[in-house]
Amino acid sequence: MRHSRHFLFLSLKKGLIVIATLVFQCCLLPAGNKPNIILIFADDAGFADFGFQGSKYFKTPHIDVLASQSVIATQAYVSASVCGPSRAGLLTGINQARFGFYGNNTSSSANATRHLELEDLGLPLDQNTIADYLKDLGYVTAIIGKWHMGNADRFHPLQRGFDYFYGMREGARSYWAYDKPEEEPYKRLERNFKQFREHGGYLTDRFADEAVNFIEGHSDSPFFLYLSFNAVHTPMDAREEDINVFPELTGKRSILAAMTLAMDRAVGRVLAALGEANLANNTIVVFTNDNGGPTHSNASSNYPLRGVKGTELEGGIRVPFLVRWPNRLPKGVKYEMPVSTLDLLPTFIKAGGGNLDELPQLDGVDLIPYLTGEKVTRPHQTLYWVYSYQRAAIRDGDWKLLRLMDRPAELYNIAEDTSESKNLADRYPEKVRELYKKLFTWETQNQEPLFNTGMQWRSHSMELYDTYK
Amino acid sequence: MRHSRHFLFLSLKKGLIVIATLVFQCCLLPAGNKPNIILIFADDAGFADFGFQGSKYFKTPHIDVLASQSVIATQAYVSASVCGPSRAGLLTGINQARFGFYGNNTSSSANATRHLELEDLGLPLDQNTIADYLKDLGYVTAIIGKWHMGNADRFHPLQRGFDYFYGMREGARSYWAYDKPEEEPYKRLERNFKQFREHGGYLTDRFADEAVNFIEGHSDSPFFLYLSFNAVHTPMDAREEDINVFPELTGKRSILAAMTLAMDRAVGRVLAALGEANLANNTIVVFTNDNGGPTHSNASSNYPLRGVKGTELEGGIRVPFLVRWPNRLPKGVKYEMPVSTLDLLPTFIKAGGGNLDELPQLDGVDLIPYLTGEKVTRPHQTLYWVYSYQRAAIRDGDWKLLRLMDRPAELYNIAEDTSESKNLADRYPEKVRELYKKLFTWETQNQEPLFNTGMQWRSHSMELYDTYK
Repeated sequence: MRHSRHFLFLSLKKGLIVIATLVFQCCLLPAGNKPNIILIFADDAGFADFGFQGSKYFKTPHIDVLASQSVIATQAYVSASVCGPSRAGLLTGINQARFGFYGNNTSSSANATRHLELEDLGLPLDQNTIADYLKDLGYVTAIIGKWHMGNADRFHPLQRGFDYFYGMREGARSYWAYDKPEEEPYKRLERNFKQFREHGGYLTDRFADEAVNFIEGHSDSPFFLYLSFNAVHTPMDAREEDINVFPELTGKRSILAAMTLAMDRAVGRVLAALGEANLANNTIVVFTNDNGGPTHSNASSNYPLRGVKGTELEGGIRVPFLVRWPNRLPKGVKYEMPVSTLDLLPTFIKAGGGNLDELPQLDGVDLIPYLTGEKVTRPHQTLYWVYSYQRAAIRDGDWKLLRLMDRPAELYNIAEDTSESKNLADRYPEKVRELYKKLFTWETQNQEPLFNTGMQWRSHSMELYDTYK
Repeated sequence: MRHSRHFLFLSLKKGLIVIATLVFQCCLLPAGNKPNIILIFADDAGFADFGFQGSKYFKTPHIDVLASQSVIATQAYVSASVCGPSRAGLLTGINQARFGFYGNNTSSSANATRHLELEDLGLPLDQNTIADYLKDLGYVTAIIGKWHMGNADRFHPLQRGFDYFYGMREGARSYWAYDKPEEEPYKRLERNFKQFREHGGYLTDRFADEAVNFIEGHSDSPFFLYLSFNAVHTPMDAREEDINVFPELTGKRSILAAMTLAMDRAVGRVLAALGEANLANNTIVVFTNDNGGPTHSNASSNYPLRGVKGTELEGGIRVPFLVRWPNRLPKGVKYEMPVSTLDLLPTFIKAGGGNLDELPQLDGVDLIPYLTGEKVTRPHQTLYWVYSYQRAAIRDGDWKLLRLMDRPAELYNIAEDTSESKNLADRYPEKVRELYKKLFTWETQNQEPLFNTGMQWRSHSMELYDTYK
């Protein structure tokens, strides 16, 4: 068993455990003891729409169990309020604005950007991904689900460090098989490279099948599984029997609950497979989500946060975030400092025995010493968000400034006002000025946009600031 | 003489003159009576650096005489605070943001824009210029001087409505001949298409020679002469004898005075040629400048305005502005309402007998009825500026809001505070909100950028807001 060495340490006297753990962390990680890593990434889920997040209506029993075995980060952020740039940040550990990825890589952006076609949009090829690094560290790497980092062959997951791919290149698709898949070239289900074949049944279940198969087939080698659900992104497709579980809900809300239930069932199957393979103790399992819930499109709830996907309000950028690693982390505890999905790359690379000093300058940090309590300072004094090369936000300590295009900047104290209900800009003008400068100084170090978000989306997303007050 | 019909009307009884003038304006402009049009465009001149603008140090006797014969617009704006977009607006009558021209078309912008080379940057080919329209109206059209609307052949003045070109494609060059002109392919002096030949002597004088020749050669046909000085843009090249006229000045300031004196001498020669050809009365002569003075580079003065080229403060966008048309306009009077260089295209087209209703939607208006006093309302309730797709300003009535990237928005009342010394944003928060909305609504109707201004310029130009307080 790959985690035996660590358990051996635990059998020693208590005084020795700390020393042994430190030694283990620093120097002595043998290849055979590399933890497996499973990153479960939900799509467009509401902050509140899980049992462990307090939902009274949605049923997520398996993810709730995972939460009870995990460190729960209560202030976890993605690096953008929409799918594309958020995933670009996650996969690189670098705030994507630093390489010019400011908006969604969609046909709308391609249309809005001169000289570019949709095929030109994707995660720049000069950026390395988590999978690139982990593969170099001896991991078998797989992505199952949504890619959304470029449709063209050159952006394909198998070109970006993944050994295995089952999913779709695009950012969303039907949960049912397409009758005419050839009409949706980049939404088709693909196995590895260009083995296109639609599935039977419901897609979230099929992704679970694939993930379970992958785990069962790789119990002997360290693996990185990026389980990238399109759930619970639109279209609002759900199994009838899942909808029937929620007779008290109606309309989109009942369908969303059913889509979430299916995702929970899939997570349960993955965790069961992990347990059955005896890999649970030395596997890092992260569960999180790519951006805030788009209440306007899928009826998700971000309560008590204000705002939705597409805004830099907390409801757009703060996400559920669980990290389970039985061998190293406490369970069922909350971590209350701000963390970021940008932290996942360095956390995984460090856990996999990599040397972070050899990587390009990252914006994330290795979270493990924070989650264990070894480090008590904030992982991030400052976090930044920028959308479409115009709108931006900064969180510095507990102060957050939103620099908007159609109204004055807003200032909130997130520690005292999680719901961003009290704009303090008039009361603390010096703080506003200070954060404006800090934000702009950061922005001027970033790259020009690879492509732009269209005017209609800029306009629409500002309306969301008013709709979800 | 081409203006004889108008003088005939003037010889009638006073009561008839109004009717006759209106008829003349609407319907009866015979081809032979079309006014000539001379647009004299200075480059990077300071708002204060002319005798008629109050300078105690600079000597501009010929332009001062022109001012005494002109309507002087005291609140004239360009549509951008830097050369490229300002000229794109001037030449099209359309705020250049509406077709995506947000920053200077320089190698710096090309470097900052992915997929583009400097050769790709220029005035979009689907936009018509003043020269296109006037040529259709029977005018002989000429540009003498700086083009700066694209280096590539497809952007060449002869492709954009001009019959004749003598000058350089680039935005600036030495005032002296290049020893190795082949090293400066787009700065070389060019006659018409690719007849490259460096000049002798001082460039501003040579442009005057060419303009005088053009006027002398075209006294029989209506002409449009766009005399586009690179003076007084850097490099700081001046004739020794011109510098010696200003013994009380030192350093760059003395050179700038000499460069301005040379430009004034050139203007004097052009106006003299016009008079000698007996064309003065029915020629519209406009003198203005492409943006505020860049005090930081050429020591120009924008007193009493705050700010410089590259900022949306008044010092960056308000320019000297003279319109002389003896047959139609009063002389030596001031026009105090805000006008724009965007107005020149419709003013010229209308004067040349064109039908503005047949043109695409313009942002400028025919100024003549305003300058005559026939119309007493404001030509523009609202004017907009946007730089690099981020920073922007709006003037609505006498209120002006600057939306900046590194500090809170600033609000000024321009009628009461021309120098923008009292930021009223805290005092009138509702006005700030109103103008923010109006500005953003306008922006969302514009086009995506053709190219971007590099981060370093964005950063640099924000510093100018602090340097020139």
